[in-house]
Amino acid sequence: MNGAQSLSRTLVNGGVHTCFVNPGTTEIHLVKALADEAGMRTILCLFEGVCTGAADGYARMTDRPAATVLHLGPGLANGIANLHNARRANSPVINIVGDHATYHRQYDAPLTSDIMSLAKPVSGWLRTSTKAEKLAEDGAAAIQASMEPPGQVATLIVPADCAWDQAKGPVTIKTPSKRKTVSEDKVPTVAAALRSGKPAAFLLNGQALRTECLEIVSSIVHRTGVRVMCETFSARLARGAGRFPVERFPYFPEKVEEGLSGLAHLILVGANPPVAFFAYQGKPSWLTPESCEIHTLANPDENALEALEALAEESGASKMKGKVPGLSRPGLPTGALTTEAVGATLGALLPENAIVSDESVTSGAAAFAMTTGAPPHDWLFVTGGSIGQGLPVATGAAVGCPDRKVICLHGDGGAMYTLQSLWTQAREGLDITTIIFSNRKYQILHHELTRADLKDPGAEVLRMLDLSDPDINWIKLARGMGVKASRSETADEFNRQFAAALAEPGPHLIEAVIPSSRVNGVEKHFPPL
Amino acid sequence: MNGAQSLSRTLVNGGVHTCFVNPGTTEIHLVKALADEAGMRTILCLFEGVCTGAADGYARMTDRPAATVLHLGPGLANGIANLHNARRANSPVINIVGDHATYHRQYDAPLTSDIMSLAKPVSGWLRTSTKAEKLAEDGAAAIQASMEPPGQVATLIVPADCAWDQAKGPVTIKTPSKRKTVSEDKVPTVAAALRSGKPAAFLLNGQALRTECLEIVSSIVHRTGVRVMCETFSARLARGAGRFPVERFPYFPEKVEEGLSGLAHLILVGANPPVAFFAYQGKPSWLTPESCEIHTLANPDENALEALEALAEESGASKMKGKVPGLSRPGLPTGALTTEAVGATLGALLPENAIVSDESVTSGAAAFAMTTGAPPHDWLFVTGGSIGQGLPVATGAAVGCPDRKVICLHGDGGAMYTLQSLWTQAREGLDITTIIFSNRKYQILHHELTRADLKDPGAEVLRMLDLSDPDINWIKLARGMGVKASRSETADEFNRQFAAALAEPGPHLIEAVIPSSRVNGVEKHFPPL
Repeated sequence: MNGAQSLSRTLVNGGVHTCFVNPGTTEIHLVKALADEAGMRTILCLFEGVCTGAADGYARMTDRPAATVLHLGPGLANGIANLHNARRANSPVINIVGDHATYHRQYDAPLTSDIMSLAKPVSGWLRTSTKAEKLAEDGAAAIQASMEPPGQVATLIVPADCAWDQAKGPVTIKTPSKRKTVSEDKVPTVAAALRSGKPAAFLLNGQALRTECLEIVSSIVHRTGVRVMCETFSARLARGAGRFPVERFPYFPEKVEEGLSGLAHLILVGANPPVAFFAYQGKPSWLTPESCEIHTLANPDENALEALEALAEESGASKMKGKVPGLSRPGLPTGALTTEAVGATLGALLPENAIVSDESVTSGAAAFAMTTGAPPHDWLFVTGGSIGQGLPVATGAAVGCPDRKVICLHGDGGAMYTLQSLWTQAREGLDITTIIFSNRKYQILHHELTRADLKDPGAEVLRMLDLSDPDINWIKLARGMGVKASRSETADEFNRQFAAALAEPGPHLIEAVIPSSRVNGVEKHFPPL
Repeated sequence: MNGAQSLSRTLVNGGVHTCFVNPGTTEIHLVKALADEAGMRTILCLFEGVCTGAADGYARMTDRPAATVLHLGPGLANGIANLHNARRANSPVINIVGDHATYHRQYDAPLTSDIMSLAKPVSGWLRTSTKAEKLAEDGAAAIQASMEPPGQVATLIVPADCAWDQAKGPVTIKTPSKRKTVSEDKVPTVAAALRSGKPAAFLLNGQALRTECLEIVSSIVHRTGVRVMCETFSARLARGAGRFPVERFPYFPEKVEEGLSGLAHLILVGANPPVAFFAYQGKPSWLTPESCEIHTLANPDENALEALEALAEESGASKMKGKVPGLSRPGLPTGALTTEAVGATLGALLPENAIVSDESVTSGAAAFAMTTGAPPHDWLFVTGGSIGQGLPVATGAAVGCPDRKVICLHGDGGAMYTLQSLWTQAREGLDITTIIFSNRKYQILHHELTRADLKDPGAEVLRMLDLSDPDINWIKLARGMGVKASRSETADEFNRQFAAALAEPGPHLIEAVIPSSRVNGVEKHFPPL
C-alpha cells in the first residue's frame, strides 16, 4: 500500500465519500488510489474553482466534508476564490494539493511555488506532509480539523513522493469534536434582555438558521415579540411554508443601520456583529446602533440549538407554538419577462425540499421574496462575496442531495467565472435547473457608480461594466458543455421552460433575458428592515 | 484629483497604456479614473486569469508592462495561476488590486482576506498603499519595479479610500534600471571553454532567445561548433527562416539527461541550470551531467547581448556570418486530420511575423517542428506550467501587436480553464486564430499513468483523465462568446479553414478533432537532443 492508498482508505473510513478532482502529474498516484477506492466517488471538474465551490455546496447540504484534488500552487490558486466563500460559510472542506516530491522542491522547477502562503488565507488548518508513512495520519488530522465546529477548510499539501512511497496503512480518526455548550450565565442574561420590554432582535447564523433552531426561535418570538434577522448572505437558510421567516439584512449598510435604529438589544446566535459589506464614503462600517447592547447567546462554534432550547424554557416559551406562514404561492405571471415575473414563477412552481443556490446579485430580490410561502426549501448564498460560486455550489449540493431539486439563480456576469461547472453537471446527470439572469451588465457596479457620485461616466467607463458587444449566448455555452438550454424573453416562455426543466431530471439552463429596465420589484420585495 | 486619478496619470506618464480590467465595488474609482484617462486603453475581461495572462502576453511582445485591475483577494487569486507563468517568464506586469478602505479592514467584512499572503508567491514587488497622497508614488514604484531587469510582477494593493481621497497629483518615474553588464572575467573563461575542443553547449533564455542575440550566437556556432539549446518552455523564442534554430529540450527529464550526456561545458546565457519539470521515481531531478562544468555567461538580469558580442569577438567570430536555414515550407497535407497534418498546414501557411501562443501540450510537437523553415515568427510557451495560459497570452499579444497575426495552439483540457478569453477577443476584434486540439482527454496524464507504472487503471481512473461524456463542443462555446468557429475532421477541411481564418482579420476558432490515436509525428519531430 502506498501513501496515496493509505490516504484514500483513511478518507473513506473517516466518512469522506466524495472527491472533486482536477488533477495533474503530481497527483497521478492520488487519482489512481482515490478512483480505485471502494466507497469513494471521484468527480472530474474542468477548473479548480468548480472543485472547491462544489465541495462547499456539498458540505452545506450534508454537514460532511468532501475532498478536492488540486494541482500544486496554481491549481490551488484557481480554487481559492470559492474556498474564500467556503471559509465564510464555515464549510468543512478537505483540500488535497499535490506538490513536487520533497527532494525535488530545492530545484525550483517551473511549477514550484510557495503553496503554504497561498493556502493560509483560506485554510483554518494547513499542513504539508513530510513522508508517505505519515500521510494517513495527516489525512485523519485533516478530516478531524475540517469537522471542528463550526466547520472549516483544511488543506493538506502532498508531495508526490509521499503519495508514491510505501506506507503502513490507513488510520482511524478520533471522534469528532462536538459543539461546545454555551456558558451557563448567557441564557439568563439574554432572557432578561428579552423581558426588558425594550426593542430586541436576534441575529442568527450557521446552525441557528436550520429548521430545528428556527422552530424554537418561532416559539420565543411568539412569547417575547423579539425580531429575528440574518445577514444578507448566509451559508444556508431554511425557509418556506411552515418555517419561521427570518428578516434578511438589505445589502447596503445605510439600510441596515436604518433597520436597526432604536434597537436596545442585539442577540447574536452563531453570528458576528453586523458590519457593512463594503465601505462607502460617509456611510457606516459598524452597523449596531451606539445605544444598542450586544449579547452573544452562542458563538459560531457553540451549540445554538441547546442554547435556544434553554432560552425558550427560561422565557416560558418552551411549550408555546409560534406562528409560521402557511403555504401561499403567487399565481403564474404573464406578459414581459421581469425579475418580478421570474420570482412569481419560482414562487408558483418551486418544488418541495428544493435547494436554491443564489448568486443572482441585483436580479434575485423578487425571487427570494416571492418564495417565502413556497413549500419548505433551503437557500444558499454567496457567503464571502466572491463571485462565481453559484454554479459550483449548486453542483456540489446536487451531488450531496441526489433526491432534491436544485435551482441555481445566477447573474450573467458571475456565471462566466465558473461556467465549466455545467460540464460536470452534464457528465454526472445532476438534477439542477440554472436560471441565468441575462441583463448583460455588471448591474451592481452601475449602482456603485451612482453611490460613489462618479458623475458623467464616459463611454469607456460604462463599457467596463457592460457585457454586451458581443452578447453572451448562454444557450450555446450550455449546449457546448452538454446541458439542455433555452431562452425566455416573456413570462409565458419562462413559465413553460421552468416547468419543463423541473419535470425532467438532469441539468437544464434557462437564459432569462431581462434588460436592466425590467429589473423590478426590488423596493417592493426587499424593503429595508 | 483623487488618488485613483493620480495613479492613472502616473501610469500613463510612465508608459503604461493598457489595462486589463475585471472590477468590483472596491475598484469603482479606479475604473472611472483609468477609463477616463487619455492614453490608457482599458480592456474588460470576464475572468481574472484572462487579465493576468493577457498582461503577460502583452509584456512578452512589447517589453512593457500592462496593468491589471483585480477585485480584492479572491479576484487576485483567480489571476494567480497566470501570474505564476508571468513570474517564470520574467514579464513586467503591474497588478492593481482593490481592497477595503483602510479603516474598514478591522471589521473583517465578508470579502476581507490576507491579500499580501496570496500575492507574495507571484510578486517580485509587493506593496499596500496607505493613503491617497502616496498612491501616485506607489504606482511609480510599481512601474519601476516591474521593469527592473529581467522584468517582474509588481503588485500594488489599493484600499478604496486611497483611490477616492484627494491626492496631490501624478509623479514621474525615475529612469528605469538597465541590465547589468556581465563581469569582465566571464567572457575569457567561456571563450576558453569553447576553445577547449570538448563538447560544449549554450543554454539560452530570456533576452538571449531574441533575434539580435541569436544572430551573434549563430556566428559563434559557425566559429566554434558549440551546440545551442533552450528549455522546453521559454517566454518567447524567435525562430523561422533566417534565424538560428535552437534545440529545444524535450519534456521528460531522462530525455534531456540523455541529450546532455558527454557534455563538458554548459554555458548559461540568461538561463538557470536545467532541472526536471517534474520528479519521477528513479529519474533524475538535476539534469547536468556530473562531469560537465557549468559556466554562467550572463545571469537573467544581465545584458546577454553585450556579453555575446564580447564573446563573439573574443572567439574570433565577430565578423563571420553563421549559417541559418532558409525559407522551407512543407506541402499542404491531405487525408485524415492528425497532429502532423496540423503541423504541416501551419508550416505551409504561417504568415510572416506571426506570434504563436502555444499550450498544445502533447499535440503540438509536429507544429513546432514543421514551422522551423516558416517565415520569421515568435513562439510563446507556457513558462510556469500552469494550465490556461495560451488563450489569455494570445489575447494580450494581439493587443500589444495589432499588426501581427496571432495563432493560438491549445489543448482542449487547458483551454477550458480560461475560455472566457474568447469573449474579450471578440469584443476587441483581436486578430487571433485559435486551434483547439480536441483529443477529448488529459492526454499527458495517460503518459504519466504509464510512466508511474500504475497498471490496470480502472474505468474510474480513466474517467478522471477523460473529457468526453459529454464531448465539449468548441464551435458552440466560441460562438456563444461571439467568435467565429468551425470544426475540422480532415486535413483538407483544416487547410481550408485555417487559410480562411488567416485571410479574415479578427478572432476565429478551429476545433481540430484529433483522436489520440492520430497524435503522431512526436518521435519524428521531437527527437531527443
